[in-house]
Amino acid sequence: MNEDINILILSCGTRNKIVQYFKKELAGKGQVMATDCSELAPALYDADKYFIVPRMDEEGYLDFILSICKENNIKAVFSLIDPELSLLAKHRQNFLDIGTIPIISDFEVVELCFDKYEMYKFLIQNGFKTVRSYIDKEKFYKDVEAGIINYPVFVKPVKGSASININKVNSKQEVEVLFNQFDNLMIQEFMDGIEYGADVYIDMISGEPVAIFTKEKIKMRAGETDKSVSIKDDKLFELIKKFVKKAGFKGIIDIDIFKVDDEYYISEVNPRFGGGYPHGYECGVNIPKMIIENINGNVNKDVIGDYEEGICMMKFNEVKAIKTVK
Amino acid sequence: MNEDINILILSCGTRNKIVQYFKKELAGKGQVMATDCSELAPALYDADKYFIVPRMDEEGYLDFILSICKENNIKAVFSLIDPELSLLAKHRQNFLDIGTIPIISDFEVVELCFDKYEMYKFLIQNGFKTVRSYIDKEKFYKDVEAGIINYPVFVKPVKGSASININKVNSKQEVEVLFNQFDNLMIQEFMDGIEYGADVYIDMISGEPVAIFTKEKIKMRAGETDKSVSIKDDKLFELIKKFVKKAGFKGIIDIDIFKVDDEYYISEVNPRFGGGYPHGYECGVNIPKMIIENINGNVNKDVIGDYEEGICMMKFNEVKAIKTVK
Repeated sequence: MNEDINILILSCGTRNKIVQYFKKELAGKGQVMATDCSELAPALYDADKYFIVPRMDEEGYLDFILSICKENNIKAVFSLIDPELSLLAKHRQNFLDIGTIPIISDFEVVELCFDKYEMYKFLIQNGFKTVRSYIDKEKFYKDVEAGIINYPVFVKPVKGSASININKVNSKQEVEVLFNQFDNLMIQEFMDGIEYGADVYIDMISGEPVAIFTKEKIKMRAGETDKSVSIKDDKLFELIKKFVKKAGFKGIIDIDIFKVDDEYYISEVNPRFGGGYPHGYECGVNIPKMIIENINGNVNKDVIGDYEEGICMMKFNEVKAIKTVK
Repeated sequence: MNEDINILILSCGTRNKIVQYFKKELAGKGQVMATDCSELAPALYDADKYFIVPRMDEEGYLDFILSICKENNIKAVFSLIDPELSLLAKHRQNFLDIGTIPIISDFEVVELCFDKYEMYKFLIQNGFKTVRSYIDKEKFYKDVEAGIINYPVFVKPVKGSASININKVNSKQEVEVLFNQFDNLMIQEFMDGIEYGADVYIDMISGEPVAIFTKEKIKMRAGETDKSVSIKDDKLFELIKKFVKKAGFKGIIDIDIFKVDDEYYISEVNPRFGGGYPHGYECGVNIPKMIIENINGNVNKDVIGDYEEGICMMKFNEVKAIKTVK
């Protein structure tokens, strides 16, 4: 009984595929449980057991989650939404104390991902190409005059999730309007190139990247990849390996990368399952299985690049209907 | 062999559920075939047979579709995208001549749906409440001064599909900027109320509305309903019946409606399967079956309101992977 590998997925939302994949990989050797603060999160209903929980910012939230873990013999926990990742990382020891492994990078590494300007500095200092970024608009104007950067540029919050509040801007006047209206903005170069996504698993025991799945994004919709095609490039794999080792990521991460004039530029990292991970799974890059191996105390072997190129993934809508209590 | 009920779905795109529902309802009594101009339309791969076709605006497109119908003994055809609806309606006779029924309203009625200002005039003239609309900005400014309408308002193209190019506007200055930049705009009142969607089937033989499914939209995403809950209100059913009879719709339509201060306002009509139709199907409002009955020459009986209230539909992403030819 104690040997059941029960897994808890926090803030599951509409990520039904992730719940389904874990159920498939566990194949009865444990249960997949899920939480959300809304009963209208369809992924709840694909789990073996689900819990409607308070909102993350409510007092007592952490204790609520910890008690779910304890009572349900949860072996590993992870979250699918950004604001919860820092919470999990910060309280790693509380989970470990009750026998639950949080699948998440260290707190400082998670925080680095959510401060786009800190990440920019980290990348530059460590010799990685990245998207030119400014928090000082005067410095930006000087660089425009010097021809180092040109309009259009993106103006966005230094700490922001998904594509919320991103403005494509064509003039100094527009930059001024936005900086007068909002605090903590940054200016980012517009990358006129190809966009890639990488799903990477860094073994939780060995600390080594063991799986990398890269895909070219061919159609976006509402800030999410709608269609993508699998690609392989050893140069990109080497860059990703070097970067994740340097930053010290652990578990599952999702990286956004641009290619301009045959050079790769690291853009952003989400230290969680990316919205496009189903593409990797459908191509055989089985990260749920690797997580289960780690929970069982086994180190995963390196399967980087172990998938087929030219496989296109297309999203479409599935529906789940429930009776609401009114 | 001639008795097979083969159905052709044009421009199927990501509407996998529609293809799946028809396959289920035909249950082997015919084939569901689908077209798209892109091989990256996931719904193609749920069909029994699929065709990659030229773009709709290319010469010879209609003949291409007609020859597919002829060669595959297609009994009925319909499209899932707006620009193609007028084409189908306009060339109804060409399809009928080869034994294929286009599931679409008459040409004039389809055109009325795509001219938002004509639809506004039609509704007002026939005594239906609708969203206050202007193509004359000076008349709008006068009404603002007279307190008949207030900011914010929407500025959008008179002929526009989905939510493309819709601006929420707060001042005369912004209205002027948009009207200087673009032609054929209209100004529409911002409705601060509840939004409903109605899926309606008007029997192709009797001309009577026989199915109405109404739902409250509770969450939107990228202009599409992400979550909705089924509702029933006889007052709304009566309004819809009166409206569809007056306008002379046929087959499947999708209506957007607002409720403000307990009054219903008809906003827009899409004379095709709406993106939220799966909600109705999952609640038992089986329009594919009604279409099949009509193809077989049978009149459908009235099942208006024959479903459960309080059923919530939630969308999530499913994926389809294919090997691309590179």
